[in-house]
Amino acid sequence: MKALACIAAAAGLVAMATPASAQFAKPEDAIKYRQSALSVMGTHFGRIGAMVNGRIPFDAKVAAENADIVADMAKLPWVAFGAGTEKGAIPSRAKAELWAQPAKFKEYSDKLLVESAKLSAAAKTGNADTLKTAFGATAGTCKACHDDFQAKL
Amino acid sequence: MKALACIAAAAGLVAMATPASAQFAKPEDAIKYRQSALSVMGTHFGRIGAMVNGRIPFDAKVAAENADIVADMAKLPWVAFGAGTEKGAIPSRAKAELWAQPAKFKEYSDKLLVESAKLSAAAKTGNADTLKTAFGATAGTCKACHDDFQAKL
Repeated sequence: MKALACIAAAAGLVAMATPASAQFAKPEDAIKYRQSALSVMGTHFGRIGAMVNGRIPFDAKVAAENADIVADMAKLPWVAFGAGTEKGAIPSRAKAELWAQPAKFKEYSDKLLVESAKLSAAAKTGNADTLKTAFGATAGTCKACHDDFQAKL
Repeated sequence: MKALACIAAAAGLVAMATPASAQFAKPEDAIKYRQSALSVMGTHFGRIGAMVNGRIPFDAKVAAENADIVADMAKLPWVAFGAGTEKGAIPSRAKAELWAQPAKFKEYSDKLLVESAKLSAAAKTGNADTLKTAFGATAGTCKACHDDFQAKL
């Protein structure tokens, strides 16, 4: 059991049962988690973007793989924007408005789930134009939320 | 297309076609990606750990959800340890030995894929003891790789 304890301690996690926002022991744990999930999502989304924008050749299989990961990752970050995670020991670009407008934030995150699922389906068609349209809709959803709730660099 | 360009630029990504290790424009992009994927994996793995170590009550559904995410995330980080990603503009705890022993590193990452798939299957049995055994095997795999290839904090 030493290995288990070591790994659990290394992860620096004391998960709580409920509510979901309390699954993170410290605000910075939630901030790190959501930033990590969004970063992984952004990497894979960016690869589709490189294809639809013509920077790399279209490859239906690679597009579909990346879109599936985007759709999976799109499910993860939102629970880590719970009450009390506005600020922590690591920087966050999330604006106070996000917590002041939870319904709007949920609308955005729900929309991303829908759009990323559509992106995944579009990628499976193997049609570059279909993918491009779905990519645009997904990107627009990212941007709308960032415009409202993410501080500029 | 402005939104697309904006999102792609924000992600800071210029994905390349091949080889896989060149999917990252800069070493720090690869470092950030692998750290992010491993961090998300660690968060969900830690939640299972909290259950099997008795810190939170066993909940078969929650365990299965977390194990599925662990198994999905376990597929992602390894490509981002390609040649040239040893050091970058952000800190990395990966040791030079990792790049000196690629076969051993691949053995570890392959083993994690196997063990995390077993963990996911174990979680679906709904049996806490089965989950605990699989968690231990998975944690041991993490630890073995960290012991060899991750610098201590």
